[in-house]
Amino acid sequence: MKLASVAGDGRDGVLVVVSTDLTRIRKVPEIARSLRQALEQWAGVEADLRREAEELEGDPDRGEPFPWTAAAACLPRAFQFVDGSAYLAHVERVRRARGAEMPPSFRVDPLMYQAVSDRFLGPHEPVAVAEESYGIDLEAEVGVIVDDVPMGISPAAARSHIQLITLINDISLRNLIPGELAKGFGFLQGKPLSSLSAVAVTPDEFGPDWHDARVHRPLSSAINGIRLGDPEAGVDMQFGFDELIAHAARTRPLGAGTLVGSGTVANQDPSRGCSCLAERRVLEILSGGEPRTPFLHFGDRVRIEMHDREGRSVFGAIEQTIVRA
Amino acid sequence: MKLASVAGDGRDGVLVVVSTDLTRIRKVPEIARSLRQALEQWAGVEADLRREAEELEGDPDRGEPFPWTAAAACLPRAFQFVDGSAYLAHVERVRRARGAEMPPSFRVDPLMYQAVSDRFLGPHEPVAVAEESYGIDLEAEVGVIVDDVPMGISPAAARSHIQLITLINDISLRNLIPGELAKGFGFLQGKPLSSLSAVAVTPDEFGPDWHDARVHRPLSSAINGIRLGDPEAGVDMQFGFDELIAHAARTRPLGAGTLVGSGTVANQDPSRGCSCLAERRVLEILSGGEPRTPFLHFGDRVRIEMHDREGRSVFGAIEQTIVRA
Repeated sequence: MKLASVAGDGRDGVLVVVSTDLTRIRKVPEIARSLRQALEQWAGVEADLRREAEELEGDPDRGEPFPWTAAAACLPRAFQFVDGSAYLAHVERVRRARGAEMPPSFRVDPLMYQAVSDRFLGPHEPVAVAEESYGIDLEAEVGVIVDDVPMGISPAAARSHIQLITLINDISLRNLIPGELAKGFGFLQGKPLSSLSAVAVTPDEFGPDWHDARVHRPLSSAINGIRLGDPEAGVDMQFGFDELIAHAARTRPLGAGTLVGSGTVANQDPSRGCSCLAERRVLEILSGGEPRTPFLHFGDRVRIEMHDREGRSVFGAIEQTIVRA
Repeated sequence: MKLASVAGDGRDGVLVVVSTDLTRIRKVPEIARSLRQALEQWAGVEADLRREAEELEGDPDRGEPFPWTAAAACLPRAFQFVDGSAYLAHVERVRRARGAEMPPSFRVDPLMYQAVSDRFLGPHEPVAVAEESYGIDLEAEVGVIVDDVPMGISPAAARSHIQLITLINDISLRNLIPGELAKGFGFLQGKPLSSLSAVAVTPDEFGPDWHDARVHRPLSSAINGIRLGDPEAGVDMQFGFDELIAHAARTRPLGAGTLVGSGTVANQDPSRGCSCLAERRVLEILSGGEPRTPFLHFGDRVRIEMHDREGRSVFGAIEQTIVRA
């Protein structure tokens, strides 16, 4: 099942079911007004939503065209976003950039931070930043959205709470981050609003490519139409989403609709490229002594997308332009 | 005007206006279903809410008794909670406990972290923790709730966005925090769900005791009925709420309903006591070589309250028992 949100009265948008080929949608106000509301009563609405999705799929005359250019984030806002950093190739490279080693404990204890969630940018919404000098960067990630998760849950029990999968562009302001992290309280100004793909999908949409609580498909990123990378999201993910959820829920329950991010997708194999510019710049430093790729400029276009085995876009592309605020 | 939320269908609770003496409430479904909803359209509902509050105040037979024992948090959940640490006496003491100096930049650049907000405990709701060995501590704070704040706002312009004031018990798990902060990504497991007072009040409720974007009243904390401290919230607050809001909004807008916390209220004058046990333990170490006061045990009762000049409780007390999860 594929779900999305279109603009409507209110900040949560209007829930729609989406055809597998992403061309058609159907509003389902009799089931739930918004995706947020659906997630808060998931057990009671999932079967109805699946029936609507099947009916839409079975009848090509049903529904209306997907308003792609005006697509909202699949979940326009959430009460919680906890973002992991499960790809250690990313962690190692970014740390190496500032001359730091990765502690061995990072292999068993996930890195995760509390992120901003009061609004997610839509997949085609401009990214407005005050100054290029902040060091504007993308981070292409996979995220899962859960229903209510009890405190202290085990990774095994966490799997059944993964209801939806989405793509995330976790915009990062690289030049604000070192000073901010040095203060010891984590990210705030260095991580402005993130963007989500237009569509969220249930794990079964991936068939055999969803297992071990990981998505086993490449995630492609490009800047101004030029490939940045396409690492395999199922490779080198040190912690599955089950473990990330359990980590987040160790001392508190997670409310329905919580988004759990994977962190920047990265493979140890450098030929797979990168999902953020910070990593590419580190690889350039290691090979040639200095970074050649600048951070994003106003006017640059970022594209993040994942395809299934048949080459069809699963979530629709995140495609955003960086603009001056 | 005083506002609160009582239990009702849905996770946001039902908005009520509250009499100044906190004894009576009145539901106002024709104005807004929940406080969250009211904040999202504040300019359109504030006058109506104030009229309801005046009518309740003027007619002692109006309304129904405040259901204190079942009171929800004034805002049962929020899309964002950013918690400052504006009292440098607290920062200095907690750092001294681990042998660290406070950097001079902390006097001009606020400390702030992205905090959990998908659920706030009610003022009488037990605090459920898995293990006493986590080092359970209270932190008594003042918080403000804003309407929509644009990105890049100045401190002066931020003042008009402060719509409500509340009390916060920012529960902290002291023994989880050093390891977590050492990872560099801020608090997650070390800061479980916070609690809010039953009532939120508009700044004018404080009369002359609200100025410079600070509340100029003492905040009292007690454990098992024994005073922990009553520091002046308006003294030694290095950054006003205007500056804290501007700091949070430097690179992103803040959605209506965002809670901005002051950090643990602390005065340089040690005779005012403390608003958390970590500070008391540091003062004990400094005076006697080792901490004498343990962190909270299961069964301990925490009380946080603020009174006006006439000795009336402004928000109602936060009074919680620590229990085993």
